[in-house]
Amino acid sequence: MSVSLPRKELFDLPEGVIYLDGNSLGVLPKGAAARAQEVIVDEWGGQLIKAWNTAGWMDLPRKVGNRIAHLIGAPEGSVATGDTLSIKVYQALAAALRMRPDRKVVLSDNGNFPSDLYMAQGLMDTIGKGYALRTPAPVDVMEAITEDVAVVMLTQVDYRTGRMHDMQAITARAHAVGAVMIWDLAHSAGAVPVDISGCGAEFAVGCSYKYLNGGPGAPAFIYVRPDLVSDIQPALAGWLGHDAPFAMELAYRPAMSTERMRVGTPSILQLAVLDHALKVWEGVTLDEVRAASIELSDLFIAEVEARCPSLVLASPRDPNVRGSQVSFSFDHGYPAMQALIDRGVIGDFRAPDIMRFGFTPLYIDKQDVLNAARIVEEVILGEIWREAKYQTVSRVT
Amino acid sequence: MSVSLPRKELFDLPEGVIYLDGNSLGVLPKGAAARAQEVIVDEWGGQLIKAWNTAGWMDLPRKVGNRIAHLIGAPEGSVATGDTLSIKVYQALAAALRMRPDRKVVLSDNGNFPSDLYMAQGLMDTIGKGYALRTPAPVDVMEAITEDVAVVMLTQVDYRTGRMHDMQAITARAHAVGAVMIWDLAHSAGAVPVDISGCGAEFAVGCSYKYLNGGPGAPAFIYVRPDLVSDIQPALAGWLGHDAPFAMELAYRPAMSTERMRVGTPSILQLAVLDHALKVWEGVTLDEVRAASIELSDLFIAEVEARCPSLVLASPRDPNVRGSQVSFSFDHGYPAMQALIDRGVIGDFRAPDIMRFGFTPLYIDKQDVLNAARIVEEVILGEIWREAKYQTVSRVT
Repeated sequence: MSVSLPRKELFDLPEGVIYLDGNSLGVLPKGAAARAQEVIVDEWGGQLIKAWNTAGWMDLPRKVGNRIAHLIGAPEGSVATGDTLSIKVYQALAAALRMRPDRKVVLSDNGNFPSDLYMAQGLMDTIGKGYALRTPAPVDVMEAITEDVAVVMLTQVDYRTGRMHDMQAITARAHAVGAVMIWDLAHSAGAVPVDISGCGAEFAVGCSYKYLNGGPGAPAFIYVRPDLVSDIQPALAGWLGHDAPFAMELAYRPAMSTERMRVGTPSILQLAVLDHALKVWEGVTLDEVRAASIELSDLFIAEVEARCPSLVLASPRDPNVRGSQVSFSFDHGYPAMQALIDRGVIGDFRAPDIMRFGFTPLYIDKQDVLNAARIVEEVILGEIWREAKYQTVSRVT
Repeated sequence: MSVSLPRKELFDLPEGVIYLDGNSLGVLPKGAAARAQEVIVDEWGGQLIKAWNTAGWMDLPRKVGNRIAHLIGAPEGSVATGDTLSIKVYQALAAALRMRPDRKVVLSDNGNFPSDLYMAQGLMDTIGKGYALRTPAPVDVMEAITEDVAVVMLTQVDYRTGRMHDMQAITARAHAVGAVMIWDLAHSAGAVPVDISGCGAEFAVGCSYKYLNGGPGAPAFIYVRPDLVSDIQPALAGWLGHDAPFAMELAYRPAMSTERMRVGTPSILQLAVLDHALKVWEGVTLDEVRAASIELSDLFIAEVEARCPSLVLASPRDPNVRGSQVSFSFDHGYPAMQALIDRGVIGDFRAPDIMRFGFTPLYIDKQDVLNAARIVEEVILGEIWREAKYQTVSRVT
C-alpha cells in the first residue's frame, strides 16, 4: 500500500462511523463548506450577475471537466460537465445512434444501472423506429456484440456486484463489428485506473458524487473522443452548447469542442464544491488508490468469510475483475444493513438481497476494515437483524 | 403600492448597487448561506448517505415544486423540479408531440429565448420525421396558430423586450385548433400573476434563478396538467421518475404523478438554497408584486424618456402587455451598459442593441428607480460610454 494513503486529514469524517458507502455518496472534503460560503456570499451575493465573469463561473464547467479528464485518462478539453448522469447517458446514446443510422440494436447488460436502461428506452421510444435494447447477463456481453449492434453501452463496474468489464477488450470487439462504444464510469472514476483514450471508446459518462466526493447531486460528466467532436449532433441542443451562446441566434450551431455537450445554465454552487473536492486528487495516482483498494477489499472478504459463513460473496473473488466494492448476498440483507448502520458501519442495500460495501482508500484504512468485519460478525452471528425495529424500517433507499 | 413591499430586509444587497438584473440572476436571500452550510456540514458531512432520508433530501424536489406551484396558480403535486430549463423544455415538447402524432409543426416565435428553439430543433432532428419549427414575430403568433400545428410553445414574457403574450387567449386559440400548449414561465414566475390552471395549458416550464432568487444554476421546474399526467410518455425516462426507483427494475415504469418528469439525482445543495429562497414569498401575493412592478417600471420609463431622448423604448408602453422589465434600444447599448454597471446600476445587454432593466419589487423601490434614472442620464447624456475602457470590454454576457 502506498505510504501516502489514506488521506483522512483531507476529509471531515463523522466520529464513530466506518463509512463504506463512498460508492454511493462520497464524504465531505474539508474546505468544501467554506468554498460554498464564498460562492454564495462573496460571488453571488456580492458580485451578482457580474460573477459569471468576475468569479469565473463561465469557465467553471470546463475547469472541472479538465480535472475529471485527468482522472480518466482523457485529454484536456475532452470532458464536459453538467446535468445528471442520466442526461449524459441520453446525450451519448442519441449521438451514437446517429453515427450508425442503419443499425437498430443497443446492447447493454442486465447488470447495468437501471437508469441507463430507462434512458435508452425513453430515447428509443422517442425516435420510434424499431430500435431494440438487448440486455444479456454481464458475462454474456462479449459474445452478444454482433454485427447488427449499433451501440454497446455498458457500465464498467456493476453497481450491485462490483464485477468489472474489460474496457479494452469490449471496446475492441465493439469496434471490430462496427459498433459505437459508450462507457458509464459511475463506479470507475476515482475508483480504478481508467484509460479512456487508450481504449478508444467514442463516449464515456459518469457522475461525481461517488468516488469523486462532489456532494449530493453533484454534476455529471461526458467525454467525447476528440476526433469525433465536430461531427457529433447533440440531441439536447442547449444554448450553452452553442458556438456563440450570447449571440442569441435563432438557429442552433454547436460549439466546435466537447462543450457542445453542455445544455443549460450550470449549477454553479454544486460545480464549485465539486471543483474544490477534486483537489484532493492532486498528487494521488489511481494506481496507488487501486492497489490500496484491492488490499482493503481482499482483507474485508477474508475477514467476513471467516466470520460469517451465511454471507455469500456476490462480487468476483479475483480482484482484477472487481471494482472498488464488495457485495454479499444475504436473504436478510435489508434488516442486516440497517443494524450495521445503527452500529456505525455504513454500507447500503440493493435489491433483491445485496449488502454493498464500498472501499475508498482516500479515507478508509485497514483498521477500519477490521473493525467493520468485527461488527458485521456481531450483527450476523448475533442475528441482531431479527430485532423488530430492523424488520420494520421503511425502505426508501 | 402595497405597504408590505419592498422587503429589502430579507435580502443581502451589496452596498452602492441598484440591482436591475433580477430578471437574469436574482439576489441573495438572507439565510441562504447558513442553509447551505447546514446542508453541507450537518447533512452531507454528518449524516452522509442517510441524509437522503434523515435530512429530507428525497422529499426536497417535491417540496420545492409545491412552493413554486403556489406562485404559478398550480395545484399541489403538479410541479416537478430539477435539471435545467432547457431540459424541461425538451421534456415538455417531446411529451406534447407524442400527444399529436399526426401533426408535424411546432409553433413558437422569434422572440423566444434561443435555447427553447435550439432544444426544439435538437428534439425534431432526433425524432427525424419531417417536423418543422415556425417562428413568426411575437405579434403574429395568434394568427399563425392553424390546424396543422401540433404544439404551441412560447415564453410568456419576451426576454429582450418584456412584451407579454396573453396566456389565456393564446391557450384558448391553441386548443381551438387542437394543438397542445407549452408555456415557458422563465420571466413570469415570481414576476407576474400566473394562473396556469385557469388557462388550461398542458405544460409549463420555468427557471428559478431569476425572480425566484434560487442562485446561479438553481433547478428548473415543469408543470403538467394533472388530468394528463398518467398518459404522458417521458422522453427522458430517468430512474427518479420511475414509479419505484429503488426496486431497480430493468424496465421503465413511470411514476403515477408529475414526478415522472424527474430524471436523475437531484442537486440537493441548489435545491436546499432554492427552498430557502422561496420562503420570502410567504405572505406576499403576486398581485401586490405586479402592482408595484408596474409602478416602478412606469416611473423608470417616464424618467428615462424625459432625460435621454436617444434611448428608444423597446418594451410595450402599455403595462398590461409588459412583464417586469423595461428595455431600451440604443446603438451603443453594450458600452453604455458597462458604464452603468461601473456606476452601480446593474442591468444587462442583449444583442443586438437592447439595454435591459428588470424590476423586482421585493428589493427595489421608487428611490432606487429615481437614482437609476439619474445615473442613466449621466452616462447617456455625458456620453460616458464613449470612454475607451467601455469600448474594449470583452463581451461574454
